[in-house]
Amino acid sequence: MISISKRSAVEPFHAMDILAEATRRRQDGRPVISMAVGQPGHPAPQAALEAARKALEGGRIGYTDALGMTALRQGLAEEYRRRHGVLVDWKRIVVTTGSSAGFNLAFLSLFDVGDAVAIARPGYPAYRSILAALGLKVIEVAVGPETGFTLTPESLERAQAEAGVRLNGVLLASPANPTGTVTAKAQLKAVYDYCQGQGITLISDEIYHGLTYGAEEATALEIGDDAVIINSFSKYYCMTGWRIGWMVLPEELVRPVECVAQSLYISAPELSQIAALAALSATDELEQYKAACQANRDFLMTRLPELGLPLLSPMDGAFYAYVDAKGFTNDSMAFARRILAETDVAVTPGRDFDPVDGHLALRLSYAGTMTEMVEATDRLAKWLPKSD
Amino acid sequence: MISISKRSAVEPFHAMDILAEATRRRQDGRPVISMAVGQPGHPAPQAALEAARKALEGGRIGYTDALGMTALRQGLAEEYRRRHGVLVDWKRIVVTTGSSAGFNLAFLSLFDVGDAVAIARPGYPAYRSILAALGLKVIEVAVGPETGFTLTPESLERAQAEAGVRLNGVLLASPANPTGTVTAKAQLKAVYDYCQGQGITLISDEIYHGLTYGAEEATALEIGDDAVIINSFSKYYCMTGWRIGWMVLPEELVRPVECVAQSLYISAPELSQIAALAALSATDELEQYKAACQANRDFLMTRLPELGLPLLSPMDGAFYAYVDAKGFTNDSMAFARRILAETDVAVTPGRDFDPVDGHLALRLSYAGTMTEMVEATDRLAKWLPKSD
Repeated sequence: MISISKRSAVEPFHAMDILAEATRRRQDGRPVISMAVGQPGHPAPQAALEAARKALEGGRIGYTDALGMTALRQGLAEEYRRRHGVLVDWKRIVVTTGSSAGFNLAFLSLFDVGDAVAIARPGYPAYRSILAALGLKVIEVAVGPETGFTLTPESLERAQAEAGVRLNGVLLASPANPTGTVTAKAQLKAVYDYCQGQGITLISDEIYHGLTYGAEEATALEIGDDAVIINSFSKYYCMTGWRIGWMVLPEELVRPVECVAQSLYISAPELSQIAALAALSATDELEQYKAACQANRDFLMTRLPELGLPLLSPMDGAFYAYVDAKGFTNDSMAFARRILAETDVAVTPGRDFDPVDGHLALRLSYAGTMTEMVEATDRLAKWLPKSD
Repeated sequence: MISISKRSAVEPFHAMDILAEATRRRQDGRPVISMAVGQPGHPAPQAALEAARKALEGGRIGYTDALGMTALRQGLAEEYRRRHGVLVDWKRIVVTTGSSAGFNLAFLSLFDVGDAVAIARPGYPAYRSILAALGLKVIEVAVGPETGFTLTPESLERAQAEAGVRLNGVLLASPANPTGTVTAKAQLKAVYDYCQGQGITLISDEIYHGLTYGAEEATALEIGDDAVIINSFSKYYCMTGWRIGWMVLPEELVRPVECVAQSLYISAPELSQIAALAALSATDELEQYKAACQANRDFLMTRLPELGLPLLSPMDGAFYAYVDAKGFTNDSMAFARRILAETDVAVTPGRDFDPVDGHLALRLSYAGTMTEMVEATDRLAKWLPKSD
């Protein structure tokens, strides 16, 4: 007899359930194409694999400092200088076990039970679940074409009034999952300034940085030092399964985060840290991967609407198409399960990202190869009922 | 301007602070010997390294199912059959990002804010910090020679009465850190039965299993299916920096843990899962490592008392000597820092493990090599003031 906590009653991450089902089908020998999770089809960069191989020869893979290897923290600081022209003290950079650990550490270190944090709807479902499990109030702010699919001072002000709460935190993702929205620097600065004025902590989710297609890519670090920045090697750097990411913290937050991380994580995986450091210099290979994503995107931007799945949002960054499936279903969850069962194409129900309108939407990841995009959409074309 | 949460005001994990200082000194070229953290001097087993090398050739390291790779879960089930003669459904086994993730997932899934959980004092400090960060009441139960250094129904009953709380959980570690205590099966069963009778969930920390020296090693699985078991590849399997562990859950807890893990961790590192699976068959190599630990233990059991550092507890398992330093100091924290600064030997202040009496104690890990043990104790012998 076991008593189960109330706080663990979080919504499943349906994409992960779909992934588990896709894995079972693949183990049964079925030709599954996964467009369900945000996982690059490209392997980790050669330089990263090579660094990992070398480290394995040494043999001993141990704990690192809780904040991460100095060389990696310094390498990331250099990367901010190179890519964004921003000087950041490497001691403010904290290596984490994927951005998942970054979110958990940020929420725990910034907010107490009962505090309120605003996120965009649609948005990444793990935000909602982690916030809820940690006892925080989730204030979902609907975003759409009228706000450029991002949060704005006005929408945050309205959300506070409507929910009757004072926000303690705002989480803004750019590029955003699932909408692909890129928040321009001026917009980001408006939100940053609003948060500063209201005593709200801004968390800037920048894990899809590097994957923008024409749009302007700004880090909150260009604006000021008082945001918490979360980033990851999973996306642009193609290192999902390595579970490695980082945060950039306001100086006064470094020690509290270190103390929590010491107990909650000990350290990020050392081999992944070594590989990640090498990945920082793999720009040519990674830019090729980005170009492949862009080709997939251009293909799907035409192909999906042809199939009766119009785009709901811009696809300016990240690697997701968020599409309107209401021509076929009003239950995207059941629909996604049927697609997987009958075509072996794994897609994610919109419900993951939007508890209100997501029953009409699907998210398709285009992080894989063009061959997969073509084959998957061909299967869907055959399977979807024709409207003529 | 950033507001920092109250719940993140956890005690530092001093061993990790000492590790960070030791890393700095080593980077400065100093001959540091680390006996501060519980980290095997032996690398991961050859078979594990080889499996990781092979997986790197394939190149693509991705997310796995949130509960872990099926083959690893099945391999662990087989391991319980082989080592303990216990049949356990592999679907109850959940792969975690180190036991750190196991503790976090267990505490989140079992307990709500305000619930009370008993732990032994002295005990592993991350228990206290994670419990506190998650809003749980930590009930520390002093253990000593009179209870064989473990928790008993009587001490738990007394603790409930004294604290004026009803316990929701009990966490029992065997072998225990830092005391090296091994709880015999009959004692474990007594605690299991007591918890069952009181509606308390028992969490059995078995991460030092495999490292016992003569004492009887029991898993709670031999007693019943209603405990939450936490284990790790970090210790016996020598895979600290790989961040890979597992839990065995009562059936009804699997899905709640899966949902929380999907959002909080996505999955454990895939390369580590692949390597861990291979490590399960490296018994010969691992038994040699265990023998090396035992030799270190036998050496230190004589040598440390000679230095004026008498043993505080049995050293029946794990790889720690917990010693009485009151002949030299009443501030083990400052003392440990001086030892590191003046001898380049890193040890952990007892304060980590025991907020009440730990100022008089030190913990020395003997997970390293005999050469390190001899050199470290020689340095201490020269440095410690002679009492004659």
